[in-house]
Amino acid sequence: MIELENLSEIINNALRDIDYPSQPAGLYQPIAYILDCGGKRLRPVLTLAACQAVCGDSAKALNQAMAMEMFHNFTLLHDDVMDKADLRRGRPTVHRKWDEATAILSGDALLTLATMRVSMNAGEHLHDVMTLFNKTAMEVYEGQQNDMDFEQEDDVTIEQYVEMIRLKTSVLLGAACEMGAIMGGADEKVRRALYTYGEKLGLAFQLQDDYLDTYGDALIFGKEIGGDIVNNKRTWLLVTALAADESGKLRKLIEHCPVANSEKIAIVMEIYEKLNLPQLCTDAIRSYVDQAVTAVKTAGLSAADEKFFVDLALSTIGRTH
Amino acid sequence: MIELENLSEIINNALRDIDYPSQPAGLYQPIAYILDCGGKRLRPVLTLAACQAVCGDSAKALNQAMAMEMFHNFTLLHDDVMDKADLRRGRPTVHRKWDEATAILSGDALLTLATMRVSMNAGEHLHDVMTLFNKTAMEVYEGQQNDMDFEQEDDVTIEQYVEMIRLKTSVLLGAACEMGAIMGGADEKVRRALYTYGEKLGLAFQLQDDYLDTYGDALIFGKEIGGDIVNNKRTWLLVTALAADESGKLRKLIEHCPVANSEKIAIVMEIYEKLNLPQLCTDAIRSYVDQAVTAVKTAGLSAADEKFFVDLALSTIGRTH
Repeated sequence: MIELENLSEIINNALRDIDYPSQPAGLYQPIAYILDCGGKRLRPVLTLAACQAVCGDSAKALNQAMAMEMFHNFTLLHDDVMDKADLRRGRPTVHRKWDEATAILSGDALLTLATMRVSMNAGEHLHDVMTLFNKTAMEVYEGQQNDMDFEQEDDVTIEQYVEMIRLKTSVLLGAACEMGAIMGGADEKVRRALYTYGEKLGLAFQLQDDYLDTYGDALIFGKEIGGDIVNNKRTWLLVTALAADESGKLRKLIEHCPVANSEKIAIVMEIYEKLNLPQLCTDAIRSYVDQAVTAVKTAGLSAADEKFFVDLALSTIGRTH
Repeated sequence: MIELENLSEIINNALRDIDYPSQPAGLYQPIAYILDCGGKRLRPVLTLAACQAVCGDSAKALNQAMAMEMFHNFTLLHDDVMDKADLRRGRPTVHRKWDEATAILSGDALLTLATMRVSMNAGEHLHDVMTLFNKTAMEVYEGQQNDMDFEQEDDVTIEQYVEMIRLKTSVLLGAACEMGAIMGGADEKVRRALYTYGEKLGLAFQLQDDYLDTYGDALIFGKEIGGDIVNNKRTWLLVTALAADESGKLRKLIEHCPVANSEKIAIVMEIYEKLNLPQLCTDAIRSYVDQAVTAVKTAGLSAADEKFFVDLALSTIGRTH
């Protein structure tokens, strides 16, 4: 039976046991630092789970699972430099703890280490895992570039927004699932089913993030509510509201905000509620969860394995059964 | 017969013909910009030449040759951000022409494109070319980290300096040669001989760069003479002079320089000449050229092909025969 906690622990142990060269310390210490954060390790867990589901042995995909997590952390490392972020998971970001040059260079090294890891013990699957890994990487960069471009653009459509988050975050979850399927020897149909599952799950997760930043419980969500509104962050909610903003009131408010943050949050939330966005956003999340569930059901997994993936998807919307 | 100009043209044409996606422009335009610089294209030329020398057909290594040049330009792109450089080959650097986030992200994408390119049509050699490429990339990062560390350190030995430039620049020339040999189907002995040739050639080139910055002809060298001295850049000359600086006079001069640049250049050059460094540096360059020539002569190439590599090495020190 596939258990999330077991798989998380396998990944956390494997990442902790990586044997870095001791020198130059300035190159390898930041890599060990960013990879040492514990947590659920969703992406590599999906890789191990997919591999176990198709061949009964998650260990066959351990290196590829680690590669997924390493690649993910490489993107966080460089994104934090680009966004000038100070904190990541409650700790100083690499470019704050060290400096910017260190963050750029150790990020580059982490990308190459991830590339090395994905081909490790890949055997007959070497070509397939490399192709999937590199294609996914390019999509993630395109998503990040779109994200940066959208911050400067006034009229982003909801379709453009969804395509941006699909590239920036969802394809990596899709690839994580397919990577495990490849290493487990699955055929094309199963690979595609698991890829689609991960991709739709990723969209549901990202929209849920957008939703919880405004409508979550601060204690459970782990950060202040309304931060996205204060920062004018393009989210599903804001992009949808701006598209419906015929009077220009919302646009004016976010361009030259004349009021305090708490008042801005209240005004924007009122606009969201008039447009019924809390409900529409929840509906959109549920739709992506349904699409993920539908996809995984075409993979022909055992009932118990299928349940793991279905439960994980349902947990996105607070349902566990 | 192997001809440098022919091979340069093949590479320049192939790089110009890369078909990038049109969107997002912010990701792909900087990549096309940095790759569009003409020039000798030493690294990919070495790959094509090595492949032609071992199997008679340089085309077999075209993708791998392009990958070498793409990787080289990725390192330049990120190094320029780390060094805050304004100009590269007489044009604004990517982070000046666009911005820093663009330079980081398009550099990441260029590294992944290079990785994709190196595995393209690699056939049975896929594992070998990937292994060489990734190992070399890690060494280049280590060299760059050492270089940054040395700027903060007082007592760098000449052995540490040579090891730093070996990692930062020479291993890529070694890998470029071996990459061509692999794609041409060469055996381990020939691969090693050509790698060593490239590595020693790289050391000779870098030391020649150090030498010419102080002793070159400004018109031929293409930049102001003495820039390294003005900037206290750790070069073979400065590192060697500092190691012999028992009075501490040179160290004091570079730490708190009380005189104008032209005077500083004159004083430092006088110290170099007292230590006989122009001659010793020329001797060191000649020694690396000799080692490169010796290495390539063990590869068992045809006389004509061997002459190409020997002449290229000898051209480093102004000898052409």
